Amino acid sequence: MLKEIEQRQSIRKYLNKPVEPEKILELLKAAMNAPTARNTQEWKFKVITNSQALNDMTKLSPYTTMMKEAPCAILVIADLNKAISPEYGLINCSAAIENLLIEAVNQGLGCCWCGIAPVSERIEGFKNYYNLADNEYPVGVVAIGYSNETKPLIDRFDSKNISYFK
Amino acid sequence: MLKEIEQRQSIRKYLNKPVEPEKILELLKAAMNAPTARNTQEWKFKVITNSQALNDMTKLSPYTTMMKEAPCAILVIADLNKAISPEYGLINCSAAIENLLIEAVNQGLGCCWCGIAPVSERIEGFKNYYNLADNEYPVGVVAIGYSNETKPLIDRFDSKNISYFK
Repeated sequence: MLKEIEQRQSIRKYLNKPVEPEKILELLKAAMNAPTARNTQEWKFKVITNSQALNDMTKLSPYTTMMKEAPCAILVIADLNKAISPEYGLINCSAAIENLLIEAVNQGLGCCWCGIAPVSERIEGFKNYYNLADNEYPVGVVAIGYSNETKPLIDRFDSKNISYFK
Repeated sequence: MLKEIEQRQSIRKYLNKPVEPEKILELLKAAMNAPTARNTQEWKFKVITNSQALNDMTKLSPYTTMMKEAPCAILVIADLNKAISPEYGLINCSAAIENLLIEAVNQGLGCCWCGIAPVSERIEGFKNYYNLADNEYPVGVVAIGYSNETKPLIDRFDSKNISYFK
């Protein structure tokens, strides 16, 4: 297995060290290289390095406490003007986020995907805080930074999840 | 950018050559290494190598004609008994599928992600054909094989998709 896929983990402790803008750009390039249904590419990315906004994020979602330490977050938004439906926004933006996470490992960074959609309170909270337009549907936000924790790799493989039709 | 992310493409022409079972297993391991909300791991994978079933797939979804050439497909199903909701099934299975696609490049294989959910006719078609249980929600099916086409790499990067909050 590709080592970047194997080594990806949810990192919740970060060094007090900014992430180089050129690394962030590589993450965004990787995200935009994900496939989308009918090639709609309905994603938008907001790079958040404002420390007050990172601190405030815990008010928008209860599972984002790591944002207080993270130097950066990328908010991933489905553009419903381009998307076939909000569900396609979830599918396509999730593939983009997964690319972003894997590229983060490649860049020597840690990251943690925090879900927003489909939880309506979180969607409303992010829409209000970031003054998003009606067509902007926040799907998830990813904490990014240099990891300050070491965790054992988890092997989630379970052959019970596999069936065959030969 | 990681070359496997850069080189991933939707491959629609395949050589008449089976895929080694150990390679399929690596794809499934990579898929199961994707993160899931609350670590629910609500995925199931059906490896389809039955040629009649691959041929019949075009009756279940109109955009799967490449399945007639592909030696293998992996049907990705969200287990709604484990999932928080069908939307979380879409999110988590999409991340798993993206891992699978990237690992396919690593294994020297071509692949193409064909969407099923949220299109109700396709969901019903796959549920009926594969005799899925009520809790089994088919999210997508991925054609897999050795590529028989060369396509130029597409650079989908667009800086207009990026905004900053500094």
